[in-house]
Amino acid sequence: MSGNTFGLLFAVTSFGESHGPAIGCVVDGCPPGLELDASDIQPDLDRRKPGTSRHVTQRMESDTVEILSGTFEGRTTGAPIAMLIRNEDQRSKDYGDIARTFRPGHADYTYHQKYGFRDYRGGGRSSARMTANVVAAGAIARKWLAREYGTVIRAFMAQLGEIEIPFTSWEHVHENAFFSPDAKIVPTLETYMDALRKSGDSCGARINVVAENVPVGLGEPVFDKLDADIGYAMMGINAVKGVEIGAGFRSVSQMGSTHGDELTPEGFLSNNAGGMLGGISTGQPISVSIALKPTSSIRIPRRSIDLAGVPLTVQTKGRHDPCVGIRAAPIAEAMLALVLIDHALRQRAQNPAVDSGTPVIPGTVR
Amino acid sequence: MSGNTFGLLFAVTSFGESHGPAIGCVVDGCPPGLELDASDIQPDLDRRKPGTSRHVTQRMESDTVEILSGTFEGRTTGAPIAMLIRNEDQRSKDYGDIARTFRPGHADYTYHQKYGFRDYRGGGRSSARMTANVVAAGAIARKWLAREYGTVIRAFMAQLGEIEIPFTSWEHVHENAFFSPDAKIVPTLETYMDALRKSGDSCGARINVVAENVPVGLGEPVFDKLDADIGYAMMGINAVKGVEIGAGFRSVSQMGSTHGDELTPEGFLSNNAGGMLGGISTGQPISVSIALKPTSSIRIPRRSIDLAGVPLTVQTKGRHDPCVGIRAAPIAEAMLALVLIDHALRQRAQNPAVDSGTPVIPGTVR
Amino acid sequence: MSGNTFGLLFAVTSFGESHGPAIGCVVDGCPPGLELDASDIQPDLDRRKPGTSRHVTQRMESDTVEILSGTFEGRTTGAPIAMLIRNEDQRSKDYGDIARTFRPGHADYTYHQKYGFRDYRGGGRSSARMTANVVAAGAIARKWLAREYGTVIRAFMAQLGEIEIPFTSWEHVHENAFFSPDAKIVPTLETYMDALRKSGDSCGARINVVAENVPVGLGEPVFDKLDADIGYAMMGINAVKGVEIGAGFRSVSQMGSTHGDELTPEGFLSNNAGGMLGGISTGQPISVSIALKPTSSIRIPRRSIDLAGVPLTVQTKGRHDPCVGIRAAPIAEAMLALVLIDHALRQRAQNPAVDSGTPVIPGTVR
Amino acid sequence: MSGNTFGLLFAVTSFGESHGPAIGCVVDGCPPGLELDASDIQPDLDRRKPGTSRHVTQRMESDTVEILSGTFEGRTTGAPIAMLIRNEDQRSKDYGDIARTFRPGHADYTYHQKYGFRDYRGGGRSSARMTANVVAAGAIARKWLAREYGTVIRAFMAQLGEIEIPFTSWEHVHENAFFSPDAKIVPTLETYMDALRKSGDSCGARINVVAENVPVGLGEPVFDKLDADIGYAMMGINAVKGVEIGAGFRSVSQMGSTHGDELTPEGFLSNNAGGMLGGISTGQPISVSIALKPTSSIRIPRRSIDLAGVPLTVQTKGRHDPCVGIRAAPIAEAMLALVLIDHALRQRAQNPAVDSGTPVIPGTVR
Repeated sequence: MSGNTFGLLFAVTSFGESHGPAIGCVVDGCPPGLELDASDIQPDLDRRKPGTSRHVTQRMESDTVEILSGTFEGRTTGAPIAMLIRNEDQRSKDYGDIARTFRPGHADYTYHQKYGFRDYRGGGRSSARMTANVVAAGAIARKWLAREYGTVIRAFMAQLGEIEIPFTSWEHVHENAFFSPDAKIVPTLETYMDALRKSGDSCGARINVVAENVPVGLGEPVFDKLDADIGYAMMGINAVKGVEIGAGFRSVSQMGSTHGDELTPEGFLSNNAGGMLGGISTGQPISVSIALKPTSSIRIPRRSIDLAGVPLTVQTKGRHDPCVGIRAAPIAEAMLALVLIDHALRQRAQNPAVDSGTPVIPGTVR
Repeated sequence: MSGNTFGLLFAVTSFGESHGPAIGCVVDGCPPGLELDASDIQPDLDRRKPGTSRHVTQRMESDTVEILSGTFEGRTTGAPIAMLIRNEDQRSKDYGDIARTFRPGHADYTYHQKYGFRDYRGGGRSSARMTANVVAAGAIARKWLAREYGTVIRAFMAQLGEIEIPFTSWEHVHENAFFSPDAKIVPTLETYMDALRKSGDSCGARINVVAENVPVGLGEPVFDKLDADIGYAMMGINAVKGVEIGAGFRSVSQMGSTHGDELTPEGFLSNNAGGMLGGISTGQPISVSIALKPTSSIRIPRRSIDLAGVPLTVQTKGRHDPCVGIRAAPIAEAMLALVLIDHALRQRAQNPAVDSGTPVIPGTVR
Repeated sequence: MSGNTFGLLFAVTSFGESHGPAIGCVVDGCPPGLELDASDIQPDLDRRKPGTSRHVTQRMESDTVEILSGTFEGRTTGAPIAMLIRNEDQRSKDYGDIARTFRPGHADYTYHQKYGFRDYRGGGRSSARMTANVVAAGAIARKWLAREYGTVIRAFMAQLGEIEIPFTSWEHVHENAFFSPDAKIVPTLETYMDALRKSGDSCGARINVVAENVPVGLGEPVFDKLDADIGYAMMGINAVKGVEIGAGFRSVSQMGSTHGDELTPEGFLSNNAGGMLGGISTGQPISVSIALKPTSSIRIPRRSIDLAGVPLTVQTKGRHDPCVGIRAAPIAEAMLALVLIDHALRQRAQNPAVDSGTPVIPGTVR
Repeated sequence: MSGNTFGLLFAVTSFGESHGPAIGCVVDGCPPGLELDASDIQPDLDRRKPGTSRHVTQRMESDTVEILSGTFEGRTTGAPIAMLIRNEDQRSKDYGDIARTFRPGHADYTYHQKYGFRDYRGGGRSSARMTANVVAAGAIARKWLAREYGTVIRAFMAQLGEIEIPFTSWEHVHENAFFSPDAKIVPTLETYMDALRKSGDSCGARINVVAENVPVGLGEPVFDKLDADIGYAMMGINAVKGVEIGAGFRSVSQMGSTHGDELTPEGFLSNNAGGMLGGISTGQPISVSIALKPTSSIRIPRRSIDLAGVPLTVQTKGRHDPCVGIRAAPIAEAMLALVLIDHALRQRAQNPAVDSGTPVIPGTVR
């Protein structure tokens, strides 16, 4: 296994390259009886797909998903669910220039040294296009979680480059191209991105993702902590360089008397834990924040070497997102959904009907 | 499996509780022929063990490791290496008070709700004492990595509570109880901790860990990225709430023209990537920073509930670290070593003798 | 995971149903640089596919494979290789009769009770059609094994119903519809099968599979013994009820002085071990024999119950193999290839360059 | 991982060597709340341990198990259960003779070539002593299965060398040293073994194992079939060369009209399937038969080579079982229990409360 399967009980196996015939995934372990067809998956894919505004890559892909297996008469059967997305708008010739060099900050160099050669067309396997696979798988996970526990998983952009974005309302998130939870700041974001595109440069972003109505008890104590699996899932998203849960790095300068979330018969009094303690969900909202680096494919000239080690200057043409973070919200949601469903199934296996005798804290679910 | 095994090819299975008869682990997959006895492991355990200064818990444990299997005539045989550490200084009666309540910020509540009941003695399985197991396993990993590639893995404290600690020299790190890389700041740290202990409160910390001489090519492209597995490993350490790789959250406000590390025939010009691109090591130093929250067991009174949901006030007595971050440096080193050896073995399996035709960047290893 | 992925390092994830849009698999972990296109896979699929003689099911499927990912310019890249086979000749209406009943000896009943409902069309996920996936994956494995070690994997029919088939020559195996290694017996087999079809009944078969030029040292000592993984792989083939390695059940009445294969500087003197000792390959040919039960879908009336538990009589129409063993030779070869490549990669990970100081026994490879 | 962990959700990690300080295992994934102490495990270990009659090895080991973790106040907590068995009666000097040679039929040669050197004392890791670990883990599994479903797992000797043993009654099995289900044949077996020991030779055996009250629905359809995992588990027991399920090799010459087990409202009419169809349990008794080869350590002189490849004659002294099959019944039971509990937990994860609308067949359980 070369790391293309994710999850122990709800396992997603990903395949495809940016400019091959197709991408897709196989979801194994989905419980039977879930109503499912392509219309459950397409909306999430549409939220992630390229070409939907001038602020993202202009590659035109419909990202139409075909379900190849695992459903019968509109319901999941318990068999693996294979999903296929044909690539439509490959322009491989755009990439002739980078076949013999390495973009700074890109996977070109590491793929070449790891495997001896690489599919350089559009980044091949390293392309952010691969995230469509997890979005498709995540759509199944979130449907099941919603049905079982009422779980709601949502993400928003918290910072674009140097611009911090206040959280105003979930309502606004889907009304703009930036997943911004604040409507008033959108024109500022647009101006910023327009200038960035013009400059040929790129910028980073911060995305926050929140899961509500997560049952208490998910996660394992020592290695497969819920925190650890979230750390894995988020840090594994293309371009992510940092992950925080709950108070995150603010915990460093907090006192224990501030950080520890008090329990009362009326509810928890705070959520510095971000929804998990000792690796296990508390039932409070799971709160995660991630840092995405700026895109490495930029038009600004940069120093690099060619395949023979000779120095040269690289300028990346082609169609690239100037900020990969703009399309990252649905991806972060999907990855969190995949972690949660896997642990929900694991919990059912070992502890299906635990009665602790203690009621769950108000505001949380079991 | 309840998440007590870590690693695909170099697999560590952990067991034990804080106040049971013993803790330990089984390391499976170690290559044969490595010279190994307890003296290779004990020094790392000693760096982590409690009771070594007034700034950590006063529980007295020698943490003496016994190797039960997997070596013959002083060398590893390829069979699993079981290691046993007997618990010596259990004072279970200290914990009678918390048997029927939940410390805010602690795993008490989540364990109770997950399993229906819990071993409350000293935190049971959730105790930071479990990290001794990964330190023992990590000692084997780092010895092998050093022999194969000259890999050196070191951690230091970068912040204690609100006090930022400048990096001065690796030399200083092992000369003080705080793993501080700056000697002059140590009295300040001591004063801070003395006051903290007196107050009955606790504080957080930031630890940085660096691995040098990591070969290019480790890590898988899509799911088991080196970044992802490091995210998993670090976020899974007790009390960790945030993880950064390379530029981390600074990436958010960086431009692509700043962030992307340029390649030249003389070497990389920067290391914002923190040693990995596209999920795969570049050969540059791997650089990780983690946030540890303040200890949840504090003497300051806090609101909570008992097993029946009735409100009460909790004050934790017993012997606890006022800052778990102080002993975290060897743990972070061990976790990173475990991730690296696992990927080194995976790389040998799939790509044992890759010749890309391109020399590695000066300053890096293959 | 619901058991649709096989292999630790060379991992095959299978998907599809008999009468869905397509079947296929994803092969993860293939080393890069292997020359590969569909023409490497199609011949094995053609040997397994239905409709090639009057003795097998008359369903007409071209079983044309499309490689969707993992290759570039005619070579594997190290990325997952997805393969797709569209179903072409579904006649779902043939199966209306069995939607509400359970064929004796068939998976109908167990699927229904496990999942609550089932895709009854052509057996759905339980169809022998799923074996096309492993044949496709196995074709990649055997090409790599042949290139690395000169490994040759071949199977033949050793018994058809009550007719034992002498081993005469590998040459004959591919000259007849039965994979019979004896040419003279073929008319007898044809007569037997013609009568069987006419009777509406079915029969079992025994298939022997042999791998030559398997390097010494593959397999793990305690749980993932080469024997164990072969036992798993073979017993998991549809309809298999027994597996033997080497002397198999003859070992029961052998003495140790007969069974143990003596070693000499000229070679092993026998191969009762069937090519493995202590779970690890000896370098001798691996020799396995499997028993396949008679097909459960027969025209002869049998007692059963319907979905409500009411008794009835079942007679299965539709297009079925009267002896599934006839097409099992390529499947057994493929499963053995998958086990061997997985262990070859595992061996490279842990023990890549072992020098024992002892030459391998003549007639075997390292 | 070098194959020392078995099971996906109920995972057993084994460690130890025949003549090291200790053997043992870690059981991960056991549901919490199961009453458990050493007295639940010791009886199974005692049934397997050496030295209990003159017909087995005279090595004296009490095989006393110590539970190191995972229980609290007499119940499992959900944390990993580590079990330790100290080796007591090592006579390493007995094995000096085989340090430089390879016993025919033994793992000496393959270990040496795989790892480059080996722990030759008493077979090291390849010793049948390792089966004590699975017996200990299996004792936990069977206790849980009995409590949940009333599952009963029992094995008996069906053939010793050339002597076939009729099944008379389960009662007799534990009344003699051979696990013979027939009392009258015991003197014959004793005479046979006495002569065998005198001759210095060894013999094989056949063991049958049966699990009753196994719920319908365990096992996965394509790869992790219940059959496949049983094939893996049984073929992985030391010395096993053949495995049959249900009708086994008799299936080859059966007709479909005979083999397929008819379903009626009163029950199944036969059990050629041996309790599973399509990889999934039917609820009927699971019936497995295994062939164990004769011990390879015999006093009769045999040809072999030394470490330098020079021919010589080997005669094995030391204390060995003349028929390893005699102690295999508890091992086969344990392995079957481990497979069943793992699939029971997997079934709970994916299909916890399936209501098919069809009652289970009388005589079976859900």
